[in-house]
Amino acid sequence: MAVKKCVTAVIFLAATTAGAAWAEEPIKPITPPKEINQAKAELGKKLFFDPRLSKSGFISCNSCHNLSIGGSDNLKTSIGHNWQKGPINAPTVLNSSLSFVQFWDGRADSLKAQAGGPIANPGEMALTHALAEGILTSIPGYVTEFKQVFGDNKIDIDRVTDAIAEFEKTLVTPNSRFDKWLLGDVKAVTEQELAGYKLFKDFGCISCHYGESVGGGTFHKMGMVEEYKAKSPAEGRKAVTGKDEDRFMFKVPNLRNVELTYPYFHDGEAETLTEAVDVMGRLQLGKKLSDTENAQIVAFLKSLTGDQPAFTLPMLPPSSDKTPQPKPFEE
Amino acid sequence: MAVKKCVTAVIFLAATTAGAAWAEEPIKPITPPKEINQAKAELGKKLFFDPRLSKSGFISCNSCHNLSIGGSDNLKTSIGHNWQKGPINAPTVLNSSLSFVQFWDGRADSLKAQAGGPIANPGEMALTHALAEGILTSIPGYVTEFKQVFGDNKIDIDRVTDAIAEFEKTLVTPNSRFDKWLLGDVKAVTEQELAGYKLFKDFGCISCHYGESVGGGTFHKMGMVEEYKAKSPAEGRKAVTGKDEDRFMFKVPNLRNVELTYPYFHDGEAETLTEAVDVMGRLQLGKKLSDTENAQIVAFLKSLTGDQPAFTLPMLPPSSDKTPQPKPFEE
Repeated sequence: MAVKKCVTAVIFLAATTAGAAWAEEPIKPITPPKEINQAKAELGKKLFFDPRLSKSGFISCNSCHNLSIGGSDNLKTSIGHNWQKGPINAPTVLNSSLSFVQFWDGRADSLKAQAGGPIANPGEMALTHALAEGILTSIPGYVTEFKQVFGDNKIDIDRVTDAIAEFEKTLVTPNSRFDKWLLGDVKAVTEQELAGYKLFKDFGCISCHYGESVGGGTFHKMGMVEEYKAKSPAEGRKAVTGKDEDRFMFKVPNLRNVELTYPYFHDGEAETLTEAVDVMGRLQLGKKLSDTENAQIVAFLKSLTGDQPAFTLPMLPPSSDKTPQPKPFEE
Repeated sequence: MAVKKCVTAVIFLAATTAGAAWAEEPIKPITPPKEINQAKAELGKKLFFDPRLSKSGFISCNSCHNLSIGGSDNLKTSIGHNWQKGPINAPTVLNSSLSFVQFWDGRADSLKAQAGGPIANPGEMALTHALAEGILTSIPGYVTEFKQVFGDNKIDIDRVTDAIAEFEKTLVTPNSRFDKWLLGDVKAVTEQELAGYKLFKDFGCISCHYGESVGGGTFHKMGMVEEYKAKSPAEGRKAVTGKDEDRFMFKVPNLRNVELTYPYFHDGEAETLTEAVDVMGRLQLGKKLSDTENAQIVAFLKSLTGDQPAFTLPMLPPSSDKTPQPKPFEE
């Protein structure tokens, strides 16, 4: 059975890719980052999991970018301080280092610039950068670790976000079945998945979702062919540029691990991959996909799930008697 | 220096314990559990980290019993569904298997009986057991794993709590410096810590805080000698028995890892160990401790921090298209 499958895949593959070298495919395999400062990334991991970076002492980066469930929160929009309803769907932190800018509207140009945002956003973690610095400076275990990483005792938001970004760079997900196929393992994907990939290219999904992260490289309008009837007030890139023509321009999400990062779109309105593929086909490409085509593309997308980050749950250094108390029930 | 310390400790030790065999100390070293069903514990670990066991899809067992920070949430009282303010301080899950009953008021007689409580409590995770079963049954990865662990596909709350309890049994913290001392390593604790232990016994703290978990074995009244002026409405054991004499009777908390499980008492009103030791001395024992005595006992208590659970962050199986959606913004 395995042998038969293998042979079929080879034949089908030849037909699909018309003899193209793997290097010529528009999607590239993920390469794990080469230059990671391990000590800094370890510190960043602790900070990523530390709820003391929120006013409440309850919300950490990992609350909405939960690494047990694909680096997102699987909610339509996120929950912030005091159970505030967030304005937008939390993008996955997985492979975010591969995106050309951060946030749906691209308002941060680096992981480091991004990391400071939610900490101080009153609707998210609701702390201030000054208080974050004060809290961390009051924790002897952090003081020691910052010194080891940065050479002296200073703890400021620049170093905090630098460490978090270094950790986030490690959160790539290589070795998906599709990447194995790209690298020459013809048995790694099924016929249905390959058929889906062919449609993904033929229909033009690939024009936005390409490269190592299968997206994350451009802004595009949500609703290019058919208007997107949004329930959410989020306007995308317009909020950054102020230009009317940037209304509904969003960073194209990366599709790595998309099987895990439901619900979909900037407003989380598509609950399933089937729905997301259907909407994308109609609104972006003017195509109504058949059930078979849709199922094939969904199957292909599920082959993009890679190795999830595997590390020991970090242990956080305890607060000292001088550590400012969390204020969970203050506005 | 190390040698000198060692010699001093031996002399001091002889004086403190009056030549007693280690086996005769009222505090016993933690022994890791022997009979763990590993597959069941692995499943329980996933469930412990799974926010889909809450109505919101945001709160997991680990939210309030956070294993990165000592198995508690380091908040005065916990945050529940819709940011409700909990009535009581979250007890640590670490070493909870060693307690004679569960919850501050002892209303559950086993870890398994405890685990179902917060899932269905409208002020905590706010789900129903029926919906928890429905959600898990809709997730193919869980169906497979429950079958592997229990022999068939059935997923019910009995099995869910059984698995969570099995995981919780693994959450013991052996190898604290104090346990090493108990086991004969005279260098494992400092003179100050040993002096604190002697006071802990001489003053009578030991009469409630003894055994493997240094507590967790009896109910006692908060405010035995001097009345406890509570701001919290929690009445302890009275809520279970209905008897007036059980007002303010609480399960004696275990003091393992107490350095990590601030703030203290059932209402979280003591922010520091220094404060907690002072209040306990006055209210339970009628003793006003000197600063030196207090510092010695605090030092001893900090020697009770053991090996924290070390495991790889669990990866949760993704929902299917049939999985009931979380309802974070419903009451």
